[in-house]
Amino acid sequence: MNHHCMFCELRMLENLLNMHQLPDEIKEKTAREFFSYFSQLPENILSPQVARDIHVRIKKLTGISDPYKELKQKCNTMMLEMLPELRDRVSSSPDPFITALKLAIAGNIIDFAKSTDFNIYGTIERVLNSSFAIDHSAQLRSGINKAATVLYIGDNAGEIVLDRLFLEQLNHPGIIFAVRNEPILNDATTDDAIAAGIPQFAKVISTGSNAPSAILSEVSAEFSQIYNSASLIISKGQGNLEGLIDEKDKNIFFMLMIKCDHIAGLLKVKTGDYVIKNNRNTI
Amino acid sequence: MNHHCMFCELRMLENLLNMHQLPDEIKEKTAREFFSYFSQLPENILSPQVARDIHVRIKKLTGISDPYKELKQKCNTMMLEMLPELRDRVSSSPDPFITALKLAIAGNIIDFAKSTDFNIYGTIERVLNSSFAIDHSAQLRSGINKAATVLYIGDNAGEIVLDRLFLEQLNHPGIIFAVRNEPILNDATTDDAIAAGIPQFAKVISTGSNAPSAILSEVSAEFSQIYNSASLIISKGQGNLEGLIDEKDKNIFFMLMIKCDHIAGLLKVKTGDYVIKNNRNTI
Repeated sequence: MNHHCMFCELRMLENLLNMHQLPDEIKEKTAREFFSYFSQLPENILSPQVARDIHVRIKKLTGISDPYKELKQKCNTMMLEMLPELRDRVSSSPDPFITALKLAIAGNIIDFAKSTDFNIYGTIERVLNSSFAIDHSAQLRSGINKAATVLYIGDNAGEIVLDRLFLEQLNHPGIIFAVRNEPILNDATTDDAIAAGIPQFAKVISTGSNAPSAILSEVSAEFSQIYNSASLIISKGQGNLEGLIDEKDKNIFFMLMIKCDHIAGLLKVKTGDYVIKNNRNTI
Repeated sequence: MNHHCMFCELRMLENLLNMHQLPDEIKEKTAREFFSYFSQLPENILSPQVARDIHVRIKKLTGISDPYKELKQKCNTMMLEMLPELRDRVSSSPDPFITALKLAIAGNIIDFAKSTDFNIYGTIERVLNSSFAIDHSAQLRSGINKAATVLYIGDNAGEIVLDRLFLEQLNHPGIIFAVRNEPILNDATTDDAIAAGIPQFAKVISTGSNAPSAILSEVSAEFSQIYNSASLIISKGQGNLEGLIDEKDKNIFFMLMIKCDHIAGLLKVKTGDYVIKNNRNTI
């Protein structure tokens, strides 16, 4: 794990400590414990695993299982209010598949790991007027058309409403939509999937893991079985990408907005870029 | 040391690592060493001592003794270019002492511990149109008038040009101006004092310490002797305040812009406030 990711995860720890009312000496003690933990991180640990460890510890310390609950609900509500207008933009656009795909990626701006201060309106306009920095959308379209089952691994609350709009557009009978097993950051759980209306368009399952990612060594047997049998996998957001980036056996499409220079460097794009990348296609 | 200060110092470490061209594995190793160091910080260590330890280690690692050298020179030059105009504003103002005092505090915005992206022009206008959040300027004025010797502990390059403007205004024969012993952050050293023309108005000495503060257990015998014999002490900026805040024996005036909520809380003011505070006056 490189030093950029370490400092980034430490910022998440700092934000979580600042969010909660705890005595100063408890905050200092917790920070020191984590500094020790960070000094000894295993070489091959993934950022989402570190994020999970931070959240598990803070949950235990505070007794609050979902510090972002209210904010997540607000994001879902805000996006549901925008849904009719965005649906009109999709259906009236020259290529509704691409428009809905772009909006699903725009939703990826709603990421509290970076900031709770995001501009969804500006992002939507920017995505709709941008090209993808990596564009494997044609392969995605034909892949979905041919696929018996598609595993769509969701990312965040709010964002999930725009995933639903994309699912509406796909109108595919074999989609399974995966959410997180329990609250972590602003990642979508089953409650968010239901709030967003996902069950109308896909079977909803959980990864079975409490990491903000799809880490195959941690997922449930159910998720694993669906992952192994799916014809095609859509991995939404940077957290899922961090868990799946080295997978070669399956046909995976990474759909995301690039959130940091480290991931930008891995994909040879820029922070802020929009990407739809197939793991088997290097073009 | 509270957790806010720890995370703040870690941001300084991150910035320093990002400033330098070093192999990723060296940066990761250095970060891990510092996480271990932070996990074991002595309870009573001061933030400027932690900042010093970070700089000493990074200097050793890179062989670069003053990473901010060029930026500091630019700040000095920029402020020297503004000096004639600011001198006119002082002399044409209703109370030149207060105007020069306000400008000296405005200079405290030039602080790379927070950011290298500061707005000196906006800050000058804001200070000139603001009241001090703590205003012991009357005591300072009468104290200086009565003082045989004044020890003025400087802070940053660039800022030091506005300290010079205040010294011009004081026109006091017994001022000793202290700078840092060696480069740390953008703190002023003897070179900066000379560039700013301080020796025309004060005897320049060094603290004898490499911390970005005046920490009495670390200073040289010369500084200590001057500190002990001075009638009045002016402590510029937050770093010096952190070293001297608990001193009761001497007559100290803290002149600064408040840079963080931790110090704001200690002084019962707000971040961004301008303060001229005597350690013996609680009003």
